[in-house]
Amino acid sequence: MTLRVAVAGASGYAGGELLRLLLGHPDVEIGALTANSNAGSTLGEHHPHLVPLAERVLSETSAAVLVDHDAVFLALPHGHSAEIAAQLPSSIVVIDCGADHRLVNPAAWERFYGGAHPGTWPYGMPELPGARDNLRGARRIAVPGCYPTAASLALAPALAAALVEPAVTVVAVSGTSGAGKSLKTNLLASEVLGSASAYGVGGTHRHTPEMVQNLSAAAGKPVTVSFTPVLVPMSRGILATVTAPAMPGVSASLVRQIYDNAYAAEPFIHLLPAGQWPVTKATLGSNALHLQVALDPDAGVLIAVAALDNLTKGTAGAAVQSFNLALGLSETAGLTTVGIAP
Amino acid sequence: MTLRVAVAGASGYAGGELLRLLLGHPDVEIGALTANSNAGSTLGEHHPHLVPLAERVLSETSAAVLVDHDAVFLALPHGHSAEIAAQLPSSIVVIDCGADHRLVNPAAWERFYGGAHPGTWPYGMPELPGARDNLRGARRIAVPGCYPTAASLALAPALAAALVEPAVTVVAVSGTSGAGKSLKTNLLASEVLGSASAYGVGGTHRHTPEMVQNLSAAAGKPVTVSFTPVLVPMSRGILATVTAPAMPGVSASLVRQIYDNAYAAEPFIHLLPAGQWPVTKATLGSNALHLQVALDPDAGVLIAVAALDNLTKGTAGAAVQSFNLALGLSETAGLTTVGIAP
Amino acid sequence: MTLRVAVAGASGYAGGELLRLLLGHPDVEIGALTANSNAGSTLGEHHPHLVPLAERVLSETSAAVLVDHDAVFLALPHGHSAEIAAQLPSSIVVIDCGADHRLVNPAAWERFYGGAHPGTWPYGMPELPGARDNLRGARRIAVPGCYPTAASLALAPALAAALVEPAVTVVAVSGTSGAGKSLKTNLLASEVLGSASAYGVGGTHRHTPEMVQNLSAAAGKPVTVSFTPVLVPMSRGILATVTAPAMPGVSASLVRQIYDNAYAAEPFIHLLPAGQWPVTKATLGSNALHLQVALDPDAGVLIAVAALDNLTKGTAGAAVQSFNLALGLSETAGLTTVGIAP
Amino acid sequence: MTLRVAVAGASGYAGGELLRLLLGHPDVEIGALTANSNAGSTLGEHHPHLVPLAERVLSETSAAVLVDHDAVFLALPHGHSAEIAAQLPSSIVVIDCGADHRLVNPAAWERFYGGAHPGTWPYGMPELPGARDNLRGARRIAVPGCYPTAASLALAPALAAALVEPAVTVVAVSGTSGAGKSLKTNLLASEVLGSASAYGVGGTHRHTPEMVQNLSAAAGKPVTVSFTPVLVPMSRGILATVTAPAMPGVSASLVRQIYDNAYAAEPFIHLLPAGQWPVTKATLGSNALHLQVALDPDAGVLIAVAALDNLTKGTAGAAVQSFNLALGLSETAGLTTVGIAP
Repeated sequence: MTLRVAVAGASGYAGGELLRLLLGHPDVEIGALTANSNAGSTLGEHHPHLVPLAERVLSETSAAVLVDHDAVFLALPHGHSAEIAAQLPSSIVVIDCGADHRLVNPAAWERFYGGAHPGTWPYGMPELPGARDNLRGARRIAVPGCYPTAASLALAPALAAALVEPAVTVVAVSGTSGAGKSLKTNLLASEVLGSASAYGVGGTHRHTPEMVQNLSAAAGKPVTVSFTPVLVPMSRGILATVTAPAMPGVSASLVRQIYDNAYAAEPFIHLLPAGQWPVTKATLGSNALHLQVALDPDAGVLIAVAALDNLTKGTAGAAVQSFNLALGLSETAGLTTVGIAP
Repeated sequence: MTLRVAVAGASGYAGGELLRLLLGHPDVEIGALTANSNAGSTLGEHHPHLVPLAERVLSETSAAVLVDHDAVFLALPHGHSAEIAAQLPSSIVVIDCGADHRLVNPAAWERFYGGAHPGTWPYGMPELPGARDNLRGARRIAVPGCYPTAASLALAPALAAALVEPAVTVVAVSGTSGAGKSLKTNLLASEVLGSASAYGVGGTHRHTPEMVQNLSAAAGKPVTVSFTPVLVPMSRGILATVTAPAMPGVSASLVRQIYDNAYAAEPFIHLLPAGQWPVTKATLGSNALHLQVALDPDAGVLIAVAALDNLTKGTAGAAVQSFNLALGLSETAGLTTVGIAP
Repeated sequence: MTLRVAVAGASGYAGGELLRLLLGHPDVEIGALTANSNAGSTLGEHHPHLVPLAERVLSETSAAVLVDHDAVFLALPHGHSAEIAAQLPSSIVVIDCGADHRLVNPAAWERFYGGAHPGTWPYGMPELPGARDNLRGARRIAVPGCYPTAASLALAPALAAALVEPAVTVVAVSGTSGAGKSLKTNLLASEVLGSASAYGVGGTHRHTPEMVQNLSAAAGKPVTVSFTPVLVPMSRGILATVTAPAMPGVSASLVRQIYDNAYAAEPFIHLLPAGQWPVTKATLGSNALHLQVALDPDAGVLIAVAALDNLTKGTAGAAVQSFNLALGLSETAGLTTVGIAP
Repeated sequence: MTLRVAVAGASGYAGGELLRLLLGHPDVEIGALTANSNAGSTLGEHHPHLVPLAERVLSETSAAVLVDHDAVFLALPHGHSAEIAAQLPSSIVVIDCGADHRLVNPAAWERFYGGAHPGTWPYGMPELPGARDNLRGARRIAVPGCYPTAASLALAPALAAALVEPAVTVVAVSGTSGAGKSLKTNLLASEVLGSASAYGVGGTHRHTPEMVQNLSAAAGKPVTVSFTPVLVPMSRGILATVTAPAMPGVSASLVRQIYDNAYAAEPFIHLLPAGQWPVTKATLGSNALHLQVALDPDAGVLIAVAALDNLTKGTAGAAVQSFNLALGLSETAGLTTVGIAP
C-alpha cells in the first residue's frame, strides 16, 4: 500500500526535512508541495539537497491542493495550522509540526502565543507514557517542539520514579536551524560563527510551558522548569543538560536501572554505555535521541544530558514516527538510528 | 542474495562512512570489522552515530579475519593495502580506499608516495569514459581520491570535447575529514575554526598526479594541472573551482550541451540548472556530485565548479558504487542523491 | 593634535570595524556616529563589542551632522557616497569605504554597478607603486575592495617584474562579513555552517574590474583576470589563491628576491618564511596581509597566496592607514600587525 | 619605567595570548620566551599572528632563563609551576596561569588533581571581595580558571546579598581553546564542527572545587555547585548560565540594584542594559566579562548569564590585570574592553 502525502510549507527547513525523510519512506508517494511566498518556484531553488524533487514546482498552500492525500504534513508558522486543518476532512491524517495544538492548558497558550487556544491534538511523542496508544489511528497529531523533546525524554523517567524533586533546570544549546529560515540579524552567519548567546531567558521561551506540561505529567504533580536556550554555531543539533535535586538515598545503580527499564524497548532512544556522553553530531539526520544520566553526590543532583537532531527527532522525524503509528505502519519506517558523522 | 562484507580500518572516518552506507545497503550483511591500534574496543566508542553496530568489537586487521567474506573494503593508511590484498584470494572483491593502486605511472607513484609502485587496479570512477566496463566483474578496485574525483568529473567533458586548452588550474576547498583522524596540530578545532589555509601548494599534493592522469586521459593528450587545496572550517565537503583557457569560438550553449550530453545518464552527477551554483552542504551524505559550468568571455576561460561529500562520493560512496558494479548489483544500491541540509 | 572624526554607517560591519580601530587610535576623537534605518538606537544594540561607545545614540546620516569634523569615514551602501561627499567642504578628509570612487574606467563602472560614473578618487592601497604619494595630503580617498586588496598585493610584484604572463586566475575564499549585514537567505548561519559555495562566477563579481585595473597597472599592460569567490563558514578572512603562467626561465630564488624587495619596507605586508603558508586566522583584527609565493615547475605556474582580514586590511584598516597618510600622521597609528588567534 | 617580562610555555594558546597582550602593554618589554618540546623553534611557527615576534627563538624552560626579569608568566601544564617558582627569587613576580596554586583546601586539590597540595597564592580575580587588595604588591599570583571566572563573577553578588539559596547550577558552553593545544581526538576539527557535547559531567570537572571555593566565600557559607561544561564549535568564548533558587520576596529591581552596585566601579565587568543578553563574540580578545541577570518567577529562580573570552579575561587578561596590580601599574594597562566582532 502506497500512501499519498502532501507537505505544506515545503520551502522551509522543517518542510525540507520532512521531504528528505519521505523520499526514503517505503510506503509513501510524495504528492503536493506547497508554499506561501515561494509558490511558483521549484523546490530545487530552496533545497538543492533534494535532487529527486529538484524540478517540482511549489503550489500555493490551500485546502483544495492538500485535500487529495492520505496524509498532510503542515510545516507552517505558528498560528496557521488550525485554519487549514479545519478545511480538511477528518479522514485525512493531519500532522502539524507547528505549536498550535500542543498545549493542553488554554491559559498557557494565551500567555505564550497569544489569541484563542486552537485546541489540543494527540501529542506526537510516543515515548511518553500513554502517548503511543493515543497516536495509533489518530487523524490529527501535534508534533512536539524540539527543545521539549530533548528535555522531556531526558528527565521523564527520573520524575516518574520520583528520583528527583520537581524543580528542574534545563539549559539547552541549539543550532540555528530550529529558528527556521527567518531573516533576522541574529541568525546571520556573521553573527553566529564563533559565538554563543542565550536568549528567551527567564521563563519567556515558548517551549517552557510544553516542558512543564510533559514533565508534570510524568511526575504526576506540578513541576517547575527553568529553561535557558543557548544558540551556538552549528546548523543542527540540540544538547540539553537537565538538572534536578536528587531525592535522598537515590543511587547511581538505581538511576541506571530506571532509565534502562524506561527505554529498553524504545527504538529511537539510545541510552549510552556508562561513561559515554552524548554528542549532537552522532544524531545528525537520525531519529535517535542519545541519552546519558549521572548523579553528582556533592551537589546532590541528578544530571541527564540528551542529544538529538532538532529537525529529525526534534521535528520531522517525530512527525513521520507519529504518521507511521497513525496509519498502522511499522513505527520505524522511513527512519533510522544511524547518523552522519563526522 | 546477501553478500557478506568486511571493513578493515573501521575506526577511521572512511571506515565509518563505509559502514554507514553498508548499513543501508539492501544486499549486504556486515561481517568483520577490523582496526589497528583500536582493536579490542567497541565501534560505538569511535562512531557513536552507528547505533546498530555500537556494541561490535573491533578485531585486529589480518587476512585471516578478512578472508571469509564476499568483499573486503580497505580503509587503511596509504601503503598498507597491497600487503593485505596479496593474502586474500583473487575471488574476493577487494576495494581499496587508499591511494596504493590508483596511479598508472610508477614514476609518479615513486615521486609522490615513495617506494616501489604497488601496481594499478581498475579505477573506481565509473563516470570516466570506459571506466564503468572495467569495474563490472572486477575483483580488485582502487577507489579514487576525493580531490581528483571533484576535479576530474568537473573538467573531463570539456577536455574530451576540446573546449579548453590542456592547462588546468584547480583550487579546491575542503573540510577537515579528508585528512582523517590524524592527531595533528593543524587539524585541531582551535586552529581550523574561523580560518582558511592553503597547503600542499606548488604541485606537491599527492592528488596532483591522479588529476593529471584522469584529465590527460580525457583530453587524449598531456594536461598540466596546478592544484591548490585550501582547508576551511567544515567537517565534510569539497568545492573545486576548475579553470582552463577556453578555445576560441566556444559558446556557452555549446558548453552546456557538451556537459548535458556527457552526464545525462549518470545517476550521481547532478548538473544544476543554469545560474545555480553548487553548495557543498547539498551533497552531505549523498553520493551526488553537483556541477555547474560557465564561460568568462573577458578572461577567456571556462570555469567548472563541482561540489561533493569527500567521505561519500569522494571515498566510501564511490567504493560502494564500484562494489555494486563489480558484483552485478544495481549501481545505485545503498546510495542516494539526497543530501542532508541545512 | 587630536583629530575629530565621524563615521557614517556606524551600525554596519565596516562601520563597527572603523570604530573598533578608531577607539585605539592615539590621535583621534570619535565624533558623530550616523546610520540610516538604525538612527535613534544606541550603538551598543548593534555592536555589543564596542563597550566604550555602547550608549552613544546614532544620528541620521546627513551632511549637517558630518560637517563639523576633520575627517569623515563613509561606510555606506554603494552609490550613496558621492551625494554625501558633494555636500562636504573639500577641506574635510572624506574616506569612502564603498566602491563609488575606485574605478578609473567609466565603462567598467557602468557595466558592473550601473548608472553614471561617480568619478575617481585617490586609491587607498599605499603598497601599490605610486599610490602612497597620492594619498599624502589627499582630501578624498577611495578605500579598495577586500578581494582586490588580496589579489592585487599578491600578484603585483610578479607582474611588475614580468615573472608571469598577464593571464591571472584568482580563486578567493571569504568569510561572510564581507557581504555586510544584509538579510539574505544565503547568508543565514543555517545555510553557511558546514558549507562552501561559489558565487559571482564567470567574471560577474563587481570586484573583477578593480583587480583588472590594479594588476594591469602593475604589469604596464592589459591583464585578464578570472575571479571566482567562494563563501566559506567563517565570519572574517579572505584567502586568495592567485595563479598565473610563469615566464620561461623564472626561478624560485628570483621569485623570492622580487617579492622580498617589493615588500621589505612595507609595514603591513608580511612575507612568510619559505615553506610557511598563510592562514587567515593569523590576520584576525590585524592590518597585516600575510603572503607566500611558489613556483610549480610541472604546471608551469606561479602561485601566490594572500591572507587578510576583510574588515581590517580589507576595509577599515586600509581606511585608517590612508587617513593617517592623508593627515600626515604615522602610517601605522591605530593599526597593528598582531592578530588574534586561535 | 619599562618592566622586563618572560613567558614560559610560549608556544601554547595561553602563552600566545599572554604575548599578544604584552605586545600592546605600554610598560613592558618582552624578554625570554620558553617552551618545552618546542624549544629551538621560532615563535612564528606556532603563532603566526604574533608578527613582531615571529623570528624569536624559543628557549628551554628553566629557572636560569627566567630569572633575569621583573615578572615571569607561567603558562605550563598543571603541576609544573611550583617547581619552577621555587627556584625563582621571591622578588620576582611570578604569575601562574595553571591550577597549581588556586585551591585553598588541600583535600580538594588532592581529590581533583592528585598529589601533594602545592600551596595557595593570592587569587587573581580582583573583582571578588577583598581580592584586589591581596594582589597589590603580591609576588606570587594564581590566575583563576576560565569557567570559575565566568561562574563566580556571575553569581557572587547574588550570593553575597542572599538573593538566592546556596544551591547553584552552572552549565557553561565553551570553545575548544580552553583545552589547549593537546592532540586529542575529541578536539579535532572534524569532531567539533557541527557538534555540541557535554564532558566532565557529575561534579568531576576540575574547575568545580574552584567555583565552590569562590561562591562559598561570597555567600559566607557552604554553597553546592553542579557544573556541566559543554564543548561547542568555536575557538574562543565561554557562556555560563548560572541558575539558583531565588529567595522569597526578591524582586527584579532589587536584583538589578545589587548587581549595579556590585560592579559599577569595575572596569572589566559590563552589566548589559536590561533585556540585552551576552554574546561571547562581543568579548573576543577583550578583557571584559559581559553579564545579564533575570528572575524567573514561575520557576522561582535567578538566572545570571556571563560571557567572556576564555583566553583573555579567562586566562591571560586576568594574568595581566593581576600583574598590573602587583606592580602598581594602572589596572587596565595593556587591556581593553573592546572586542572584535563580527
